Amino acid sequence: MHIDHIGIAVKDIDSAIQTYEKILNRSCDKIEIVESEKVKTAFFQTGESKVELLGATEPDSVIAKYVDRKGEGLHHVAFEVEDIYAELERLRSEDFTVLNEQPKDGADNKLVAFVHPKDNNGVLVELCQAKS
Amino acid sequence: MHIDHIGIAVKDIDSAIQTYEKILNRSCDKIEIVESEKVKTAFFQTGESKVELLGATEPDSVIAKYVDRKGEGLHHVAFEVEDIYAELERLRSEDFTVLNEQPKDGADNKLVAFVHPKDNNGVLVELCQAKS
Repeated sequence: MHIDHIGIAVKDIDSAIQTYEKILNRSCDKIEIVESEKVKTAFFQTGESKVELLGATEPDSVIAKYVDRKGEGLHHVAFEVEDIYAELERLRSEDFTVLNEQPKDGADNKLVAFVHPKDNNGVLVELCQAKS
Repeated sequence: MHIDHIGIAVKDIDSAIQTYEKILNRSCDKIEIVESEKVKTAFFQTGESKVELLGATEPDSVIAKYVDRKGEGLHHVAFEVEDIYAELERLRSEDFTVLNEQPKDGADNKLVAFVHPKDNNGVLVELCQAKS
């Protein structure tokens, strides 16, 4: 298990991309819109992990609601696992609240599922696995 | 530049260690008290990056104040750099607000410095460099 990426919720993704190009001193590697989540994502590879910027494409996107409520900032941390189904089963058996009955399609060609922040000291944890 | 660690502010570090041992499915690798910051830290190696839990050891610790104000959760992201002095100079020249005039001693045998969240879409960014 390693950190696949950290997700940062932003208001204006195009402006945030410019900011992170400066702070990370590298170009954005990939921009992808996830229609089902109504978000535009931008990835920066930093070592084996990525920084993912998340901006809403619609006012009712979960990211728009998050930014309205909590402001911009660190939104989640994602761990890459080898078998997401087995990991979800393991976490359920440890009484963590898994937010997805089944893994779903996420950005970056991954299967993803989330664990509720209430069980993780306020941290939204994503598990992800590259789709084969 | 790669993600050295993500920092998670928690109320009760001993209980949080147990939680993250479950979610990460591994034992805590290192516990360290940073007297100058009044924090107890716990590190979990996950690939090349670490998860750092941060708990206050005194009520006037910056972490105690953070948890009181914002609740538990993701607190900062730290990037390992090769030359922290040069990176801080570069970021200052790009108009980022560096919170430390000079890098200071942090946990995990590192020199560390922070960039103000207002310049990074709400994200407290730490730069760190292993001390030689």
